[in-house]
Amino acid sequence: MDHLPRVTALGGGHGLSASLQALRQVTDQLCAVVTVADNGGSSGRLRGELGGLPPGDLRMALAALCGDDSTGRQWAGVLQSRFHSPGPLNGHAIGNLLIEGVWQHLGPVEGLELVGQLLHVQGRVLPMSLVPLAIEADVIGADPRRPDDPCVIRGQHEVAVAQGEVLCIRLVPDAPPACPQAVAAVEDADFIVLGPGSWFTSVLPHLVVPELADAIVNARGRRVLTLNVVPAGETEGFSPARHLELLAEHAPALRLDTIIVDAAFAADDRHLHRYAQALGAEVVVADLRMRDGSARHDPLRLASVYRELMVG
Amino acid sequence: MDHLPRVTALGGGHGLSASLQALRQVTDQLCAVVTVADNGGSSGRLRGELGGLPPGDLRMALAALCGDDSTGRQWAGVLQSRFHSPGPLNGHAIGNLLIEGVWQHLGPVEGLELVGQLLHVQGRVLPMSLVPLAIEADVIGADPRRPDDPCVIRGQHEVAVAQGEVLCIRLVPDAPPACPQAVAAVEDADFIVLGPGSWFTSVLPHLVVPELADAIVNARGRRVLTLNVVPAGETEGFSPARHLELLAEHAPALRLDTIIVDAAFAADDRHLHRYAQALGAEVVVADLRMRDGSARHDPLRLASVYRELMVG
Repeated sequence: MDHLPRVTALGGGHGLSASLQALRQVTDQLCAVVTVADNGGSSGRLRGELGGLPPGDLRMALAALCGDDSTGRQWAGVLQSRFHSPGPLNGHAIGNLLIEGVWQHLGPVEGLELVGQLLHVQGRVLPMSLVPLAIEADVIGADPRRPDDPCVIRGQHEVAVAQGEVLCIRLVPDAPPACPQAVAAVEDADFIVLGPGSWFTSVLPHLVVPELADAIVNARGRRVLTLNVVPAGETEGFSPARHLELLAEHAPALRLDTIIVDAAFAADDRHLHRYAQALGAEVVVADLRMRDGSARHDPLRLASVYRELMVG
Repeated sequence: MDHLPRVTALGGGHGLSASLQALRQVTDQLCAVVTVADNGGSSGRLRGELGGLPPGDLRMALAALCGDDSTGRQWAGVLQSRFHSPGPLNGHAIGNLLIEGVWQHLGPVEGLELVGQLLHVQGRVLPMSLVPLAIEADVIGADPRRPDDPCVIRGQHEVAVAQGEVLCIRLVPDAPPACPQAVAAVEDADFIVLGPGSWFTSVLPHLVVPELADAIVNARGRRVLTLNVVPAGETEGFSPARHLELLAEHAPALRLDTIIVDAAFAADDRHLHRYAQALGAEVVVADLRMRDGSARHDPLRLASVYRELMVG
């Protein structure tokens, strides 16, 4: 390949941020496509007060791609920081307020472009849809009085913290339109990267936006899935194979080229390779986790795997 | 003069903004020194919630000096705009929130520098003091039950809207330290410009910060005073001469080089030239007001007078 690969990474929250921090080591032709279903924290309050898309995950993606210079890092630091006060600003990220302010003047896509310029962002950050979305999940055991019955939980935050086992998610409104620029970024990419991240609330939502799912399924680029190093929260106790099964259940037509799994997470899963094969994917097993024992990807170890895969 | 003149303009609010919009036509060596006693609106609420300096007048000065390019103007537009919501963000200027956010990372002076870079500001914007201040005024007739007694009114907003006649103002805390960079900007200037603006709450406060008043009194540069085109609010009905008298009462050692007065405002004042002479100043009378009949300076007419005075 005589140019750096074009990579489009889909996700949300800290998982996407980790993905971008690794991918920026590999290419500057990078596009992030971000979930817009957050209803918790600063983003949730801003959605409630101002309407429009939740800015938080978009802000985190912009910060992860900030320019590698003092101005870019300084602005990223400012935008990632939060107000601490005894009043109503408490907890709001500065960047969320700035993005909301810019959106009053420009559309979501152009507004993110402008904030990206401020941060000297290499690449592009796009929302997966221009419609603010809610996540709805079928969860078993969420109601302790009826431990065997599925019940419906509404809201990304509520799903993320729900007791019980999540079976599947839907978006509300159902089948929302995709952001056209996000669809184009998937179509144009040499590599499409899904995960890591909260499986139900950050990774799977992209597969239930029909135009985006179609673009991923039919893309000319290679499809790469990166599993979490330790499944926590929504998928605590789920095996790698169960993560793949969920993907197939939400997007039956999806085929993958490569699945990247942390060695320790892959170790005990007898089904992983069979499930991967069913998706058409090769499995890459590598030691990916942070040396400090935290349940996160080491960005440089992950970058090393991406580089081998994408640049060779 | 073989370089553009260095000009330091002192004031606050819309008056300073008008001054800067005129002066930027004349020079790019421009420094704004801004009052920090505002306690109304978005700034007042932010002071109450976060402590620190009120950002609003500083934001307006930055916007008035924004770069004459699409990026500078676009960011100025964003920072000057306000949230409109049924919630607690309602009325907050975006720029006020951004300045507060930047101040969490950098001191007030460095923080304003960073926001200035964002706006491609030509010149510099400084607070007159690094201490948040309150304005206190003696006002006659503020209490309708005792129309002849002076009473004390506290707060810039309260003074600005007080019934009755303001006699004099003080700052609380008394004799606050000046921002050192503001003192240096006065000392280094070729021209020091006072006014236009709300006389008691934007113009006179600079003269009751002792280090700043001393710097103005002893400056090597020429001191220029620009009177309002129509005295409104705090000084409604005050003659030009009364405006000069107030200056002398608050800073007895002050001498001026030039006083710029709108022709219509100067027309009926028999005392103006005598009071000006007592201050050592030449009076420049010119038709300065907007053609639309509003009580504002036409920035280009004012710029024309400044250019003649400062560049020749």
